[in-house]
Amino acid sequence: MDSAVCAAIATRDYDTYALHFSYGQRTEARERQAAEAVAAATGVRQLLPLRLDLFRQIGGSALTDDSIPVPATAPNPAATGAEIPVTYVPFRNAHFLAAAVSWAEVLGAKHIFIGAVEQDSSGYPDCRPAYYDAFNKLISTGTRDADIEILTPLIHMKKHDIVRLGVELGAPFHLTWSCYQGQQQACGLCESCVLRQRAFAEAGVVDSIAYASR
Amino acid sequence: MDSAVCAAIATRDYDTYALHFSYGQRTEARERQAAEAVAAATGVRQLLPLRLDLFRQIGGSALTDDSIPVPATAPNPAATGAEIPVTYVPFRNAHFLAAAVSWAEVLGAKHIFIGAVEQDSSGYPDCRPAYYDAFNKLISTGTRDADIEILTPLIHMKKHDIVRLGVELGAPFHLTWSCYQGQQQACGLCESCVLRQRAFAEAGVVDSIAYASR
Repeated sequence: MDSAVCAAIATRDYDTYALHFSYGQRTEARERQAAEAVAAATGVRQLLPLRLDLFRQIGGSALTDDSIPVPATAPNPAATGAEIPVTYVPFRNAHFLAAAVSWAEVLGAKHIFIGAVEQDSSGYPDCRPAYYDAFNKLISTGTRDADIEILTPLIHMKKHDIVRLGVELGAPFHLTWSCYQGQQQACGLCESCVLRQRAFAEAGVVDSIAYASR
Repeated sequence: MDSAVCAAIATRDYDTYALHFSYGQRTEARERQAAEAVAAATGVRQLLPLRLDLFRQIGGSALTDDSIPVPATAPNPAATGAEIPVTYVPFRNAHFLAAAVSWAEVLGAKHIFIGAVEQDSSGYPDCRPAYYDAFNKLISTGTRDADIEILTPLIHMKKHDIVRLGVELGAPFHLTWSCYQGQQQACGLCESCVLRQRAFAEAGVVDSIAYASR
């Protein structure tokens, strides 16, 4: 849902090229299908689907390693976000951003949007503002043109405010996929599903996707 | 040759795990064969070969885009390194380092060696000390343990001093591959071959690999 709101923001202001990554996450095929639908609905010029073999090979995350189960959300919802969860994929966003920067250099693009959210998110270290500041510094030292910038328009927002913004912008939430483990239908139980449902409920907006459990 | 000297340094002091990337470079199969031989000769515990599809798909570099020829070295050798050449692969080293950091998080490794060389190299922006400083800052903000560090032991060295150091450490130069375009034998004409030959000549060391032209 964060990516879909970012796509709505980016396509409003720019010719937009999008990336999707199949990195061995449990839901990669379903997620890619959602990315294609969101890209088409928001008017993205091109969606480039990429495959990263690394994470399946090295393991270390519940999202990419079948031997580590995806937890149902902690009984106390206030605990969500308190520490780095087993669904953390080590240094994942650096791979996504590196691909975006490489492609931006070839396209001549100057802005890279990513739907990272610090608060209300899952405590991933690569979703914090300091991380994106450091990445922008890396770009300025390590590229040909040095003037590409990562933008994180959602990073300081609450999840329910992202829902409201998405509604305003016409983001196609009905086409999005957030679940960490369902194959065709969202499970409704994993942390990502629970955070999503809570955000829609707090925003007073109906989440129109289907859930196996609610 | 820089990677082989790094492997000799790393294996002297640490249990070492190595990565090789096939990223669509013209010489990927030959280079991977060399990486496997160097890893075996230096006592690396595991070489993980990875494939990156991105660069072939986006183009933009003579190393990965067949429509951009690899230049023979500039007639004036002093011009080498003066500006970013067409063999620059956009933001390439970020992909390599991101993979190394991800794997280090899973292994519990704390040091990442890369054979980047600033002087005497080809003017690539991602071979400069400021770039590695920025990457270390990125690691400290965006990982679980935050104490992984990239080490660039060769970065301030002249290429001929790297040859001398490699000889001292017993780096297996005879197994290495530097050429940008040969398939089984180094061309002897591309910038990488020319820089290598000059380094060996200045070090007074015989470069025992075969060249199609010298």
